[in-house]
Amino acid sequence: MNDLPTAVPLEKAYRLLNHGPVTLITSAHGGTRNVMAASWVMPIDFFPLRLTAVIDVPTYTRELIDASGCFGVNLPRRALAQTTYDAGQSTGRGRDKIADLGLDTFQATTMPVPLLHGCAGWLECKLLDPQPTATDASLLVAQVTAAWADASMFRDGRWRPEAGIDTLHYVAGGVFFPTGAPFQVRTAPGSTELD
Amino acid sequence: MNDLPTAVPLEKAYRLLNHGPVTLITSAHGGTRNVMAASWVMPIDFFPLRLTAVIDVPTYTRELIDASGCFGVNLPRRALAQTTYDAGQSTGRGRDKIADLGLDTFQATTMPVPLLHGCAGWLECKLLDPQPTATDASLLVAQVTAAWADASMFRDGRWRPEAGIDTLHYVAGGVFFPTGAPFQVRTAPGSTELD
Repeated sequence: MNDLPTAVPLEKAYRLLNHGPVTLITSAHGGTRNVMAASWVMPIDFFPLRLTAVIDVPTYTRELIDASGCFGVNLPRRALAQTTYDAGQSTGRGRDKIADLGLDTFQATTMPVPLLHGCAGWLECKLLDPQPTATDASLLVAQVTAAWADASMFRDGRWRPEAGIDTLHYVAGGVFFPTGAPFQVRTAPGSTELD
Repeated sequence: MNDLPTAVPLEKAYRLLNHGPVTLITSAHGGTRNVMAASWVMPIDFFPLRLTAVIDVPTYTRELIDASGCFGVNLPRRALAQTTYDAGQSTGRGRDKIADLGLDTFQATTMPVPLLHGCAGWLECKLLDPQPTATDASLLVAQVTAAWADASMFRDGRWRPEAGIDTLHYVAGGVFFPTGAPFQVRTAPGSTELD
């Protein structure tokens, strides 16, 4: 794999997730590790960047996250679409699903989780305390402690419009939408959103 | 506007949101109404379909939602990209932002909120009780009580791959990604996800 993860400033890291790409969630604890597919991941605050993710309580990933207090969010590129689908079709309990899917990993820097090569971006996440369990036990809230992007697509805190933004959006039944070519509308002078 | 909202079965309605499109949130109470742009909206359960949305406490939209207990989620088509951006740049307090933006509305069927013409899909939402306020007051959780889609793009519970899926994904600074052309990976025989 020839991606080259480059650090993303945390105040710009929400931009990795803001367009709603499908993710692969990585986790590890006690000498085991796992990967699952998740579409239901989004920011809830710009900075400090916090996100929420739906990770069902009976899953092995959830067991590892609850034990370790952390997880990785990986944004698969199109070449990993089949692998992303397959990651959602079976449990990692009792085996190394990451290896079985043929995924290569590198180590996160701030959390003890593996991250996956072949992705456009990566977020290292630490569970917050307390969790919003009052309404829904599957909803986790986490703080992002480090973020990375493939510099060919995301650099200087922005997706690069001249590059193909090679992230994916999942629907159902094995159907994905690629991310389309960006376009720009007129912005308000002095908008706080401009940068 | 020539869209023709067609009912979406609630067990398939998560598919309207699963790919992470930007939304316009509509709200109404006491003779006033409003619209705001929101990217941070996602399902948290397939069926009964529940979703979570980040609606900041100081916003006028939040005031109307807290008072009425309901809101609408509208998925703007590309022709509304500038309007979607503009909706995020100013408050609706003390004016009719929906009218000021030139938006046409129709009435939701299960909740007293307006919905917006020119969109690909619509979800009518009722706040759940309790809300997950322990961690973050801006995070709302709601049940979807009815869903609609433009039948030219979404029919029989599915996005139509032969049509252009004309939804948008927002990044920052006035930059949008359109939804790309769908593609299909190999699915597992008997997968519960196939339908």
